[in-house]
Amino acid sequence: MKPLLFLDSCCDFCAAEELRCLCVLVFLKDLAGMSAPQRNWKGIAIALLVILAVCSLITLSVILLTPVDTQPSSDTKLMVEDLFSTDFYVHDPEACWINGKTIQPQSHSLMRITSFMFFQDTFKATRYSISPDMKYVLFAYNVKQVCAAFCNNRCVLQLDPPEVLNSKLQHAAWGVQGQQLVYIFENNIYYQSDVRTNSLRLTSSGKEGVIYNGIADWLYEEEVLHTHVAHWWSPDGERLAFLVLNDSLVPNMALPTFTGSTYPKGKQYPYPKAGQPNPMVKLFVVNLYGPTHTLELTPPDELKLREHYVVMVKWISKTKTAVRWLNRAQNVSILTVCDSTTGACIKRHEETSEVWLSRQNQEPFFCRDGNRFFLTVPVKQGGRGDFQHVAMFTSQARADQNELRHLTSGNWEVTQILAYDENSQTGERAVLDQDSVFIRVFSVFISDTAPGGQQVNDRYSLDWDSVLVSSDNVIVARLDGRGSGFQGQKVLQEVHRRLGSVELQDQLAAVEYLLKLPYIDRTRIGVFGRGYGGYVALLLIKSTENVFKCAAAMSPVTDWSLYASAFSERYLGFPLQDDSRYQTLMLLHATADANVHFQHTAELIKNLVKVGANYTLQIYPDEGHFLSKSSQRHVASTLSSYFRSCLQEEVLPISEEEEEEEE
Amino acid sequence: MKPLLFLDSCCDFCAAEELRCLCVLVFLKDLAGMSAPQRNWKGIAIALLVILAVCSLITLSVILLTPVDTQPSSDTKLMVEDLFSTDFYVHDPEACWINGKTIQPQSHSLMRITSFMFFQDTFKATRYSISPDMKYVLFAYNVKQVCAAFCNNRCVLQLDPPEVLNSKLQHAAWGVQGQQLVYIFENNIYYQSDVRTNSLRLTSSGKEGVIYNGIADWLYEEEVLHTHVAHWWSPDGERLAFLVLNDSLVPNMALPTFTGSTYPKGKQYPYPKAGQPNPMVKLFVVNLYGPTHTLELTPPDELKLREHYVVMVKWISKTKTAVRWLNRAQNVSILTVCDSTTGACIKRHEETSEVWLSRQNQEPFFCRDGNRFFLTVPVKQGGRGDFQHVAMFTSQARADQNELRHLTSGNWEVTQILAYDENSQTGERAVLDQDSVFIRVFSVFISDTAPGGQQVNDRYSLDWDSVLVSSDNVIVARLDGRGSGFQGQKVLQEVHRRLGSVELQDQLAAVEYLLKLPYIDRTRIGVFGRGYGGYVALLLIKSTENVFKCAAAMSPVTDWSLYASAFSERYLGFPLQDDSRYQTLMLLHATADANVHFQHTAELIKNLVKVGANYTLQIYPDEGHFLSKSSQRHVASTLSSYFRSCLQEEVLPISEEEEEEEE
Repeated sequence: MKPLLFLDSCCDFCAAEELRCLCVLVFLKDLAGMSAPQRNWKGIAIALLVILAVCSLITLSVILLTPVDTQPSSDTKLMVEDLFSTDFYVHDPEACWINGKTIQPQSHSLMRITSFMFFQDTFKATRYSISPDMKYVLFAYNVKQVCAAFCNNRCVLQLDPPEVLNSKLQHAAWGVQGQQLVYIFENNIYYQSDVRTNSLRLTSSGKEGVIYNGIADWLYEEEVLHTHVAHWWSPDGERLAFLVLNDSLVPNMALPTFTGSTYPKGKQYPYPKAGQPNPMVKLFVVNLYGPTHTLELTPPDELKLREHYVVMVKWISKTKTAVRWLNRAQNVSILTVCDSTTGACIKRHEETSEVWLSRQNQEPFFCRDGNRFFLTVPVKQGGRGDFQHVAMFTSQARADQNELRHLTSGNWEVTQILAYDENSQTGERAVLDQDSVFIRVFSVFISDTAPGGQQVNDRYSLDWDSVLVSSDNVIVARLDGRGSGFQGQKVLQEVHRRLGSVELQDQLAAVEYLLKLPYIDRTRIGVFGRGYGGYVALLLIKSTENVFKCAAAMSPVTDWSLYASAFSERYLGFPLQDDSRYQTLMLLHATADANVHFQHTAELIKNLVKVGANYTLQIYPDEGHFLSKSSQRHVASTLSSYFRSCLQEEVLPISEEEEEEEE
Repeated sequence: MKPLLFLDSCCDFCAAEELRCLCVLVFLKDLAGMSAPQRNWKGIAIALLVILAVCSLITLSVILLTPVDTQPSSDTKLMVEDLFSTDFYVHDPEACWINGKTIQPQSHSLMRITSFMFFQDTFKATRYSISPDMKYVLFAYNVKQVCAAFCNNRCVLQLDPPEVLNSKLQHAAWGVQGQQLVYIFENNIYYQSDVRTNSLRLTSSGKEGVIYNGIADWLYEEEVLHTHVAHWWSPDGERLAFLVLNDSLVPNMALPTFTGSTYPKGKQYPYPKAGQPNPMVKLFVVNLYGPTHTLELTPPDELKLREHYVVMVKWISKTKTAVRWLNRAQNVSILTVCDSTTGACIKRHEETSEVWLSRQNQEPFFCRDGNRFFLTVPVKQGGRGDFQHVAMFTSQARADQNELRHLTSGNWEVTQILAYDENSQTGERAVLDQDSVFIRVFSVFISDTAPGGQQVNDRYSLDWDSVLVSSDNVIVARLDGRGSGFQGQKVLQEVHRRLGSVELQDQLAAVEYLLKLPYIDRTRIGVFGRGYGGYVALLLIKSTENVFKCAAAMSPVTDWSLYASAFSERYLGFPLQDDSRYQTLMLLHATADANVHFQHTAELIKNLVKVGANYTLQIYPDEGHFLSKSSQRHVASTLSSYFRSCLQEEVLPISEEEEEEEE
């Protein structure tokens, strides 16, 4: 029988800061005896890709109305309600990768277990994870109080170390061996070698909003690591590498709260805006077998005394980790291999750029002997500039010098090296091969609300704009101009220090082109953007006159100096001095958006009011950057109604009969 | 020559908490020698009434659209821009009352004085006040820095006591004699006997947001005294009575700030919501001639140990003050006469009510001997209940018993006793007479955004609704239902413990009546309300279906438990559980509204989003309950456009020619 294991990255939980959640362990006697039949992992991985696609966001689109002479038949129309029905959802097979193996838990079988159902029902536990030895399940549920009876039940163990009272659990996950557990309270890491032992506090410096151990602050979670997890298990479970982030110099941003109590109190959290002090980062390794001992992995000399980020940590053997360090300007990056027994880090690869370095999270694939590794790097492809391709690096006599060999080439980009099969490698040819399948699948299906994303793609996706396309004779166009990804480094890097300029020109050129198409009604064009796309949308309506009849911006960035340092400084933005009078502008923003602060929209509105501009607004009080289900529904309904009404008004006059009927 | 004096109540300044203002004194040599010809005070008072009318707010109106067959000629149309042009402003004669005399300063003559112009130009001083001895002018101007050169100029003296660094001046005003000055920094009172003497700090307990000396906290300013001034001069200038408000138990409300800086910080201020701890109040008198000595005026025994308000303080002789004390439930009120040399207060009149007591700010008029005084009190007028009429109270053997004599009667109300002429009084007949003119002028022209106001009146007023009436075939109706004022106590008090119920019935009945009128288009009716009116407007659309096509609520109260204690508890409200789906609802709210918190609109929106209701919103970031000029303009433009578009859509189809022109 194949082991049934879950990867953190697949089944992690307690991620959201807002959750006050508590994790419990349930002893599942029968689980180990149950068989999980092996599935075709290819199919599952494709399904995962589709799931990823469904989660993606549309950043910028231009909406065009065709003349009304072609009426679609009403029975084929997609409605806003359809977007939220399960009919159009991809079935989630709940499949996960573990240690190079694929598994699919039999969730229906799991549901038959009494304890499991008990938790599902009683605590509304929505997420779970099974221990490596398959004897326990970790449940996450959102509670304020836990009944003492449940706590004393022998089947249930709470993760609630005695040092911490009334504190929320920030993270909990199994380790890689047996019942190893690691969890985080109050920015400190706790460890249990198995579920019945006492917890061991690995760090004590944790302080809310100041020192973060093993867990990311806002900047590292959103802009650097792209996960809240800032610790990494060695493959044997003997060591844990973790970041310590010191935000004591980072200014706090206030997020106001409006609802839910008589005297709502706002929240504060460290958020370094462009040019402000950044969190200071250190990387440690603690050994967990025997007396615990913590050792710092030292940054390379070039960055030791300069502000820098730790952007990637990956164990490449039981004692060695690959670590990538990046300077604050984000144009010098050093890949080191660190020895966790001495703390010494040896430089293996350095990248520099005149603009900024992208893909700094990408993990290198090391051969077992540690002398050879694979990475994607920019490679010149004639006049079209550099494209990302797979390269193999082999150590030379000097440790920081490598022999470089390019494995792929062409006017296309490798987006990710998925795996490297140590066993079947025969020289350099099979480096991307795993079980002899997933070869050169270099998908370009990545969408983002930032430069580097790609709008024109084949992804399955349904949103409010699909409703317009289906029901309202609307054409939705998406444009990838300069600054978009996967078309080579030249296209991507054109926006450097010119954000809001070159990509705007491209958008304008595309609109010009569209305006010439015979089936486009030139008088009825709208634009929508979100986040960075909102910024571009605002620039578009600002720099045109009478082109866009309707415009909507959701959580728009309006001034890069108010946005996060790691993002803004990468591209260098210019504040938007908006003084134009829009025909009609719809703004949408959640007031507790921790990513693009409501501040952006507020500053914009202040200017719009000053110049007497016409706008309407939808706010989502006390919601964050990612909205609740009911708010998502409201957004979809609002945007489709807004564009429908704005684009169609003055088109469908009320008939005489209808007017008489009303009277 | 008549003395040229200004009353604080007319020319006070530094009122707004937001102002960081500094007051200076300018020596005006020539001013005393200039003649201010006496004017007809009747005309001036009428003008003042008109000015008051212009400042009034519309609270609730129902807008109805007539059929479009009558098109007004375009040349007579009032536009939104007209509302803000000076053409429609009443000329302000800058006339003030002082000590029973009327004056009108010759502002054009004043402008000729070099110093005056110097200040007008250099400091943009917008308000001024002339000292009782006419030798100095107090200027208010909004500054962050003052040039040292000006400070050393012998003509300019700054009000900037050495104890207080970088603090904002909260209030400054002349006393009643010579160059007496009183001003408030950091919630402490400072006194100067003349402009060249050192300042004397009269209190030291002042602490921002906690202890208020001589100045009102939010509750006292907005809901109790209706002014920020909480100190009163004795007629000879020898004593000063002042309130000390202790807000240490009052919970703080947070007002978020969104704009103006990279990391905007919110503000906190004590705001007792319904049922929360109120500020504790004490009344003191300090004597200013000779060594200062401060004495508390003791509350009546009945209220000493119960929560109470001090709602009125008036000096009736050099040493005696009339003080009205009100219990927290606002249904027991005691008028006392206090001796400022002993601190003892003797009860002179008590009022009780089964509902709440209104007009608690009204000042009694005492005869010189102190034995007789005049007040308006509710008097039964047959079946229509009590109406407010003038009564004369004459002391009897027992100090707290009076002989009561009613001086007016009828189904109408006396709104205010303007003056009492001690010299010409011949028995009870001339009590309201002053210089034998303004007899029985019992105006009902008071408008408010709270119960007790009156909408149907003859006041001159122009606002966004006037534009609709002038240009869009719209009829604007205002309704005074139960809860409105000046129609007797019965009508007023019907809302007690039924706020949101009975007045709603009346509004609905009125709408029903209007719907039957032949020239009303039943399909196009809108409703607008502000503050309390916003609450009623929301109730109206909630309790009707398909009656209102359009609805707008500005700064609406949505839950009385979130509103101020002194207001909410007076009428006892019910939270609005709003779950209806509006056809279209426009909300407007300033985010830093200290009166009706943005919280109200946020809670409403949260519910609207949850039920998928259709609404649009305009916010005014970081603005207060009273908007800046540009925001007022935006509101007028927004509301007139909204109602025009909402009421007229589906009425004016675009003509074929226009459509062709666009293409």
